[in-house]
Amino acid sequence: MRITPLAMASLPLAAFAANGAETTLARPDIILFMVDDMGWQDTSVPFGPDTTRYNRMFETPNMERLARSGMKFTQAYACSISSPTRCSLITGANNARHRVTNWTLQRDTSTDIEVDSITLPEWNVNGVQQVEGVPHTYVGRSFVDLLRNSGYHTIHCGKAHFGAIDTPGENPSHWGFEVNIAGHAGGGLATYLSEKNYGHNPDGTPYSLLAVPGLDKYWGSGTFATEALTREALKALGKAKKYGQPYILYMSHYAVHIPVDRDERFYQKYIDKGLPPKDAAYASLVEGMDKSLGDIMDWVEKEGRPDNTIIIFMSDNGGLATQPEWRDGELYTQNSPLRCGKGSLLEGGVREPMIVRWPGVTEPASVTDNYVMIEDFYPTILDMAGVDMPHDPVHVVDGVSFSDILHGADRGEQEREIIWNFPNVWGNNGPGINLNCAIRRGPWKLIYNYATGEKELYNIPSDISETVNEARSRPELVKFLSERLGKRLRDMNAQRPSFTDSGRPCPWPDEI
Amino acid sequence: MRITPLAMASLPLAAFAANGAETTLARPDIILFMVDDMGWQDTSVPFGPDTTRYNRMFETPNMERLARSGMKFTQAYACSISSPTRCSLITGANNARHRVTNWTLQRDTSTDIEVDSITLPEWNVNGVQQVEGVPHTYVGRSFVDLLRNSGYHTIHCGKAHFGAIDTPGENPSHWGFEVNIAGHAGGGLATYLSEKNYGHNPDGTPYSLLAVPGLDKYWGSGTFATEALTREALKALGKAKKYGQPYILYMSHYAVHIPVDRDERFYQKYIDKGLPPKDAAYASLVEGMDKSLGDIMDWVEKEGRPDNTIIIFMSDNGGLATQPEWRDGELYTQNSPLRCGKGSLLEGGVREPMIVRWPGVTEPASVTDNYVMIEDFYPTILDMAGVDMPHDPVHVVDGVSFSDILHGADRGEQEREIIWNFPNVWGNNGPGINLNCAIRRGPWKLIYNYATGEKELYNIPSDISETVNEARSRPELVKFLSERLGKRLRDMNAQRPSFTDSGRPCPWPDEI
Repeated sequence: MRITPLAMASLPLAAFAANGAETTLARPDIILFMVDDMGWQDTSVPFGPDTTRYNRMFETPNMERLARSGMKFTQAYACSISSPTRCSLITGANNARHRVTNWTLQRDTSTDIEVDSITLPEWNVNGVQQVEGVPHTYVGRSFVDLLRNSGYHTIHCGKAHFGAIDTPGENPSHWGFEVNIAGHAGGGLATYLSEKNYGHNPDGTPYSLLAVPGLDKYWGSGTFATEALTREALKALGKAKKYGQPYILYMSHYAVHIPVDRDERFYQKYIDKGLPPKDAAYASLVEGMDKSLGDIMDWVEKEGRPDNTIIIFMSDNGGLATQPEWRDGELYTQNSPLRCGKGSLLEGGVREPMIVRWPGVTEPASVTDNYVMIEDFYPTILDMAGVDMPHDPVHVVDGVSFSDILHGADRGEQEREIIWNFPNVWGNNGPGINLNCAIRRGPWKLIYNYATGEKELYNIPSDISETVNEARSRPELVKFLSERLGKRLRDMNAQRPSFTDSGRPCPWPDEI
Repeated sequence: MRITPLAMASLPLAAFAANGAETTLARPDIILFMVDDMGWQDTSVPFGPDTTRYNRMFETPNMERLARSGMKFTQAYACSISSPTRCSLITGANNARHRVTNWTLQRDTSTDIEVDSITLPEWNVNGVQQVEGVPHTYVGRSFVDLLRNSGYHTIHCGKAHFGAIDTPGENPSHWGFEVNIAGHAGGGLATYLSEKNYGHNPDGTPYSLLAVPGLDKYWGSGTFATEALTREALKALGKAKKYGQPYILYMSHYAVHIPVDRDERFYQKYIDKGLPPKDAAYASLVEGMDKSLGDIMDWVEKEGRPDNTIIIFMSDNGGLATQPEWRDGELYTQNSPLRCGKGSLLEGGVREPMIVRWPGVTEPASVTDNYVMIEDFYPTILDMAGVDMPHDPVHVVDGVSFSDILHGADRGEQEREIIWNFPNVWGNNGPGINLNCAIRRGPWKLIYNYATGEKELYNIPSDISETVNEARSRPELVKFLSERLGKRLRDMNAQRPSFTDSGRPCPWPDEI
């Protein structure tokens, strides 16, 4: 989707001219509730056809409450790790285009793990920005900025993780957020514990790059970070109500990212249920997050505009399934029936729990199997707010609004293509992790490994666990999807690794 | 100045398309150094033809340094109190148009003093906003927002005072500032003293609506508020340098507003010079502010881009001359040779110390007698940044760029009209204070009192102290200026008081 300067121009005017008070408040309040590293199964809400043992293990009564009043997405996708997802969310660009394909933190510093025989490509280690002038970055425009220009009050609470330290994008205000609670370059947190001042020494200096800023008043108070963020968010909602503007709250929890600190409000309950300690701690993290959702829903019902408040629940990548120090159970099973987890292009790494409640639009307790991708949130939220999509000669939005799905449409689609590119090496290994790319089209998903040339083909609806690789039995389909994936990657100017010995680039999926 | 949507549209694109890194950094850094309640004589820099006793009393070596490298404006005007000035600065609208004609603090609450026989008109007690939806407000667009959209990094430090508490405009981020240090709805500060936590109780709660937010780390440290703000501003400049964007720093000191706390770094020196205690304390406040200017100039020279950094020095209204508890000397003389002070439409209330250093443009140690008004800063700063003036069907910029003056032009003007409207009653009395309006055109200033019908006419260049009212001897000129003032006020939809007994509005200046 490309643009003329004209359409973008009209946005600021909306706030100053067309939208009087009544018009402004006719527009919905929007809460984007984003959880970090939460897997598809880390909830008592079944997102698959069956209620699984994980659905019975976790207790998320407020997600159940939200699902009862909104639409559940069974096939919602994000990228396999945080930075690509966050950068797609804020710019609307696919990860292959923005090239923020691994996780960011320090400026001009790659977090790739070096490997033998493969030379990793350059990627945008500085994340995304709204302005030129920073090397190794993708320049895009934030939907939040567009909402702000159209008259929305814009609130950021929690994890940002858009730009590396000392780049403009590290600051949520750069993206149009008028309030920033605790967001910075960090993609995780040093600790959830106020006893450790969320990562600060007693003298107030951070002892970690992942120290959480802005929660000083809760230091030593016994308040878990999830709760502190929630209380600050509720205060910001109180202000928003007074302002007489519609608002967007990007409630972006650091939960349930590692470290899996115990949320003591809930931990013992899970021990009593018989969970082993790590999973009990993890379940307490999840329920603390769910309580936050409930507190915000309560605020909307009591203090807000329940009939005109959209709540979107989403996670940024699959649940962690590669680090035994943090989770119990066999490796790669923590998102079962999905295979593997965070970092993988298998479903365990990219399929997310997603629910949308849009009063008057979404059918209560409805379910859709239509698939959506993280960059689709950008045009969808603009649709919800009645803000025209910007038309800009440079900035490209790859996302497609799923407003139609929310209104009840079943696309029955076979042609929408979702792609992932991960020509990097993350810090963990496992099935579907590292040096690969993938395409979902209709029921099929093709995963291609740059280093080995291996291709995997799965029929997702009939083989949700991706156990049967149909690549050998369906060569024509493999060829077609390889061509589609290769074309899309090249069209987006994606990067790829090369072979160290020869110096030659690894083939595109349709070159092998 | 009015507009089409097209021009406004092009602004955001500048950041994303035309301006590559080099283009972006070719644009100047801009520091708008604004002092609160600083009079025209509160400096060792003579802004008049003679070096006065006040010029000898105050010590502002860094203002002298700035004046040596830039252009001194001898006839720079603002409004007579803070809110009208701040609202004109940020929106570019004249005070008669934006109707924020007294000082703001609490939402929906007028600060007018009730008087006998005159009913005061409604005014915009909630200040200014960028969005519709708030009653009793003026909606305008911030030049800071335009700079931000064009790729500038935008920093606010100190006093904001744009919108009342619980209105969107209370938050500097609402106006496009990506960094906000200590700015909120308050137009003054509870105290400069860290020993009193800048207005907070030991438990951290504010004991005053004018408690300064965001300086917690300096509590109890012995750091005067002026110094704490400066250190935070320098930190923000350090970040700005890393960002690779041009920046604007709005360094908006709470100094030298009351309470006249002693800045102990400088106080004793003035006692030793023989000043009485109140004036010694005031002079210490002034010199602390001047040190801040010097620290920032030092940073620019050592760490910044001295050849491409514009520094603008300004105050927001005249020096306080009506409260014996804070200043020594006879009432109304603290801005001598100007008459009266803050709150008055006489020169003591509205003429400001102003200096602009624009490397490669302003002649070092130059002086201009051309007059300018606070709303002129808006288009001028956009000129400096190379940002086109927005053209908007609603928003009106009354200001006129003084870029030509900075480039050395002498307008020799007789036709530029500057107007003030103060149909309110402030908390203090004195010559030229309350229930009046005024026009400056060429050498002449006409002041009209709504309640009494009295008109004063002064030839400013020849009678800087406004001692000779020429209204009786020049009836044709009074008639002409009354017509001009009346027309301008009506064109801007200005408000006026009425007579309580009859309920009829006080006449416009050309109706009597």
